[in-house]
This record gives sequence, C-alpha cells and structure tokens, in this order.
Amino acid sequence: MAANRPLHGIVVLDLTRVLAGPFCTMLLRDLGAEVVKVEPPAGDDARAFGPFLTGADEASAYFTSLNCGKRSVVLDLKQTADRSRFAELVKRADVLVENYRPGTLARLGFDERRLQELNPDLVYAAISGFGATGPYASRPAYDVIIQALSGIVSITGTESGERVRVGTSIADIVSGLYAAVGVLAALSRRDRGGGGAQIDLSMLDAAVSVLENAVARYQVNGEVPVPLGSRHPAIAPFEAFDAADGQVVVAAGNDRLFAALCEVVGAAHLPNDPRFGSNPERMAHARELKHELEKALRQRTVAEWVASLAEAGVPVARVNTVADLFQDPQLAARGMLTPVAGLDGFAVTGSPLKFAGIPDESVRPPAPTLGQHNDRPLSAGKR
Amino acid sequence: MAANRPLHGIVVLDLTRVLAGPFCTMLLRDLGAEVVKVEPPAGDDARAFGPFLTGADEASAYFTSLNCGKRSVVLDLKQTADRSRFAELVKRADVLVENYRPGTLARLGFDERRLQELNPDLVYAAISGFGATGPYASRPAYDVIIQALSGIVSITGTESGERVRVGTSIADIVSGLYAAVGVLAALSRRDRGGGGAQIDLSMLDAAVSVLENAVARYQVNGEVPVPLGSRHPAIAPFEAFDAADGQVVVAAGNDRLFAALCEVVGAAHLPNDPRFGSNPERMAHARELKHELEKALRQRTVAEWVASLAEAGVPVARVNTVADLFQDPQLAARGMLTPVAGLDGFAVTGSPLKFAGIPDESVRPPAPTLGQHNDRPLSAGKR
Repeated sequence: MAANRPLHGIVVLDLTRVLAGPFCTMLLRDLGAEVVKVEPPAGDDARAFGPFLTGADEASAYFTSLNCGKRSVVLDLKQTADRSRFAELVKRADVLVENYRPGTLARLGFDERRLQELNPDLVYAAISGFGATGPYASRPAYDVIIQALSGIVSITGTESGERVRVGTSIADIVSGLYAAVGVLAALSRRDRGGGGAQIDLSMLDAAVSVLENAVARYQVNGEVPVPLGSRHPAIAPFEAFDAADGQVVVAAGNDRLFAALCEVVGAAHLPNDPRFGSNPERMAHARELKHELEKALRQRTVAEWVASLAEAGVPVARVNTVADLFQDPQLAARGMLTPVAGLDGFAVTGSPLKFAGIPDESVRPPAPTLGQHNDRPLSAGKR
Repeated sequence: MAANRPLHGIVVLDLTRVLAGPFCTMLLRDLGAEVVKVEPPAGDDARAFGPFLTGADEASAYFTSLNCGKRSVVLDLKQTADRSRFAELVKRADVLVENYRPGTLARLGFDERRLQELNPDLVYAAISGFGATGPYASRPAYDVIIQALSGIVSITGTESGERVRVGTSIADIVSGLYAAVGVLAALSRRDRGGGGAQIDLSMLDAAVSVLENAVARYQVNGEVPVPLGSRHPAIAPFEAFDAADGQVVVAAGNDRLFAALCEVVGAAHLPNDPRFGSNPERMAHARELKHELEKALRQRTVAEWVASLAEAGVPVARVNTVADLFQDPQLAARGMLTPVAGLDGFAVTGSPLKFAGIPDESVRPPAPTLGQHNDRPLSAGKR
C-alpha cells in the first residue's frame, strides 16, 4: 500500500464483528492504516453468513466485502496468556475499536482505566446499540431495531402509508462512519499533543443525527412527517415518474430547471400554468403536476429521457439495480467496483475517498482467514 | 467551546451550501473546529428553504439545523477585492470544503495549484454529485438522483415491488460523513508532517459504498436484489409485525433469541416446528412464520410487547415517529435533542460523538445571520 496514504503507519486494533465496527475499520484500512482484527476462537460472526464464495476457503461473501486487507489474530480474552498478548498489542496500537455490548471489554479485564494505563495515547472507540449511558444502555440492538426507534422507518415508505426499512443497513453504516470521524478527530488531537481519547458511539444517536430536516419541520409546523414514496417533502417535481418502459427520476430544484424540463418533454406551457409557476405552487398541486408530466414522459423510453434531459442540464436518473451498477460507465471510470485478489472476478466497492496523488487500489487484497496472522500480529514494519 | 475538543484550534473555510457540504462542516464544528462559512452575496441557498422560525430574523429551520455555531462572511469571488480577502483566509485555514460543481472554484481563480501555493498544508475537500472525473462529472445532481443511480432505491420499498426514496437525504448525508472522514485522515497526516491534501468526493461513489451485502449477494447467487418491505434479506424473523394497536419490530438474529421470542409471545412450540428450527428454515418459510408470530403478537399492545420482550433480552422496538423522539428517555439521557440559544425551545439533533471528559453542548449556539462575521472572519484567538 502506498506510503503516502493518510493513515500510513497507524495501527488499529479491531475487536469488532459483523457490520458497524468492521465498516469503521474498513474505512481506516482503506486510508492506509494497519488493521489487526482480534477475533475470538469462533471468529467474527459474519464469517458464518452466507452466501459463500467458491474457492479454497469458501469464505463468506459478506465477510469478505467488509474485511479486505485486514490482518487476523485469534485471542481468547478469557485466557490469561491471551490477555497478556492483547495487552502487548494495546501498547503498540494507535487506535482500538470494539462493538461489544457496553461493559463487556471491562469484564474481560480491559476497562478504560486499564487501557489508558497500558497506552495513554490510545484512541479508543466503543460502538454499541444505545451507548454506554441511559436507560436502554444494556439492551441488544440490530440495524432494523435502530432504524425503527430512530424515526427513519416512519418517514420511509409509500404515499399510501406503508412504511419500510431502508434496504441497506443504514443504521450500522452511519454508525461506522461516525465512529471513523470520531477516531480520526481524536487522532488529530493526539498528533498535536492532546493525548488519547475514549469515544462512546451509540447507533441510535447516530441514526437520529441523519434525520435531517424532518426534525426541524416537525417542530415548526407541528405535522408529524410521514413516508412520501419517492417524493421530496419540500420540492416538486423531485421524484420518480413512469416512462414508456420503466421509471425515470427527475429533480427540478428551481424554476429554471423546471422550465428546461418542461421544454424537453414537450410541455412548455406548464411553467405558465398558475398551478405550477413556482415551487410552492407546484408543491400545492403536486398530484396534478405529476399527472401532466407523466402524460408526457410515458411517450418515450427511460434511456431517451436520460439522454435528452441530461443534455439539457436537467438532473435525471434511471433507477439502477445492483446489476446495473456493473455496467455504469461513471462507476467504472471511478474504480468503484474493485476485484478482490484471488477471488476470480468477485468485486467489492472501492473507496470513495480519492486523494490527489494517491492511486486507487486496482485490486483489493483478500480478507484474512481466521488467525492468519497469529504468528505475526503486526506487519514487519511494526514489530 | 471546551478547549479540549479534538479539533480545537482548527480553522475550516466552508464554501458549501444546502446539505452534503454543510453536514460535513457541521461535524467538524461539533468536534471543536472554527468553521467560517464563506457565502456569496445571496447566501447559502438553504437560507431560503422553509419553514421559517419565528423570531427576530425568521431564519430557515432547515438552515439552522445544519449551521449552528458556524461563522458567516460574505464574499463575492467574482470581485477582485473579495478574491484577495479569500486568499488571505486560505493562508490561515487548515481545511477548505466546497460543494460546487467540479471546476467552479478553479474558474473563480482558485484551482488546486493556486490553493497549494497559498497554503501548502491546506486540506482541501471538494464534494460533487459524480466527482471531478468520469463521463458524468459535469452533470448536476440532487440526493434523489444519486439515490436512484446508486441502487439504493432499487432495494428500498415494499414486498409487492413499489420502490421508494429513503425518507432522509441519505446520499447527501453519507457524502458529508465520508468527506469528514477524508478531511480528518488528511489532517492527521498533515499533523505528522505529511503536508496538505486534495480530496475529490463523489456523492455517487459514497452512496454505492453503503450498499453493503447487496453487491456481494448479487455476484454470488446472480439474483438482483429487490425491496423487501421491512424484512431482512438473510435473517428471519427480523421485521415489523402487527400488534394490537400498531407495529412492533422484532429482530431474532439467532436460535437462542428466536426461542426467547417464542416463549414470551406464548408460541413456545414454534422452535420445534421443522419449518422454523434454524434460520435457513425460517427464511424458507418466512411467510408462514410471519403468520404464526403475528397471530400471537396481535393479542397485545406494542407497549406491552416492548416491555416484555426487552425484559427477556429480545431485540424489539416500536416504530417511532419524529414526534415520538421528543419523548424518548434514551435520547433525552444522551442529550440528542438540544435547544438552540435564543430560539424559544427549537431543538436540533445533538452530536453523536461523545468523548469522555468533554461535556455535551447543553445549548447549541445559533446559526449565523448572513455576513454576521464580515468584520472579523476569524475569532479573536485566530486573527
């Protein structure tokens, strides 16, 4: 890995499993850190999640997609000898991330005080469902629980009121992202002489923090936000429409774009219609607007609309499936689907963090087998 | 603001507007950085987004929720004098974040080379819809466009196949989070002597990066992922069920939790039913399982189930609305809805980044009025 990657030289001890924690340490690895997964003898639970890849070790595809390029050391922290080995690793690490339930690592002999004694400059981040304080602190959580409690489910769904889970584990993922933000801010302070840090990251706190304008709108107008299908709560047109052969998404965020949209679809009279002259008027007559636009959009295919509207500078999109991503020229140009070494074309998403002067990985290193680095927890440069 | 905040002393020049960029710089402000919004004479577009707060300046609730505690300076970068003032600020800044379309800042006289000449240690992050390279680089984008292109919409929706937008602008928000991760990683490198950095952050790249196991599953089994309502693609039961007076979400991620769930709801026979003995069997008979569990869950209220299942250690949740968040004891204990000074009880979400020894803000400072800090772009400690 290139020596000028921003986290080159940083060692991260990774006691995380499944998703939020591994997502965080994946980001740190992609930025150049050396990430050492410390796994219990049974391994990260995600190693057992199907489907499995073909090949020598039939690894979990899910586990692979979160753990490329990390190292793996098996330690049983219930055993004295392994606790000593772990303490040695703590002394050499810059960062420790875990996503046990609050109190678990302390019961294994490593509370915050002990960690600080071992390494006063350690940046320690604990990710849990609800954080270490408050009445729910000891409750178990999974992504869907946090999505439901945070209010995200209440504003995601159809206009007829059917509420759904966000199709990706967004509560886990934003928690992993926030944890990385916290770790890196603390690392920057440490590097300016500020010492170590302890971060208590709650998935519920993180999920509530991404509700965006729903919290503000509710307080001002008193209306409880509800699902709106593909519509935007404050802008029209800004949603999916039926074209001749599927759906096309159009987002006309201002009057100029609305006029350009109407021109291209052959409905140039609409901006002069008093129902549609401004965004507040378009919001007030959203259903009629949709009817008028769809009448026009149904006449041609999604591909035709995407071409002609993009040409006119109107924000437009087809609704890509996961299969479509593998054909998308922009994602190809950005290197966003990257094969994993030795896995016969199996790709994982690339890092969206593109730094000038640092080439993207054109091939991802594989995820470690369980205990692959038992004999050498740290790489040659770090021992 | 407490002097031990991790980014105390860091100056961020903020040329961003609306959402992805302001979300990024809000995170940096919450971590202790001094964030100076450099706004065009018309101000950040979001200042004009309703609804508006009552009070002296009738500020936008939306703008307020993203810009608390930042400073505001108006500069017209088309004017020579203001470009000089901006250049002076660049010399004193640690970080510059913008979310113009690629090339815009260069056309205003500040390309990457000029920025580096002014300040070789500057960490410069540019956020755009598609990034600065690739065939879509010059296209406009809004959140819903990126949600559609990234595949997120294709996996979010009802079991009957109606696809919806995630109800929060998740493409903008994960882009803001990733940008913060990139900025902080670069700052850490700089603080270890590595010099400045330029980051090219694409919202599409960021959104694709959070698809999680959908990308892996598709490649292994060839099935294009579709929306699943509130269900999980690989675990059952892990979804919303009808109770007597609303919906309750239950997530039994393993056999032990499934047995505990069945015990509490009075269906202790289910784990012995060959259709439901293991997770693969439960997935294969998900519809029948839902029917059986709902028969039991319909007998009592959501509140009763939340109490009894939480007591038994089974992950459970009601589907909170945004209004419910203001009553939630865990969010209250964590300080996650924080009043803004001078705004008569109007609250914004607190920071989920909780550091030991650094108290949360019990009151958020207000968002700046347009040009409030024209005379003193930087605070006293920074001039």
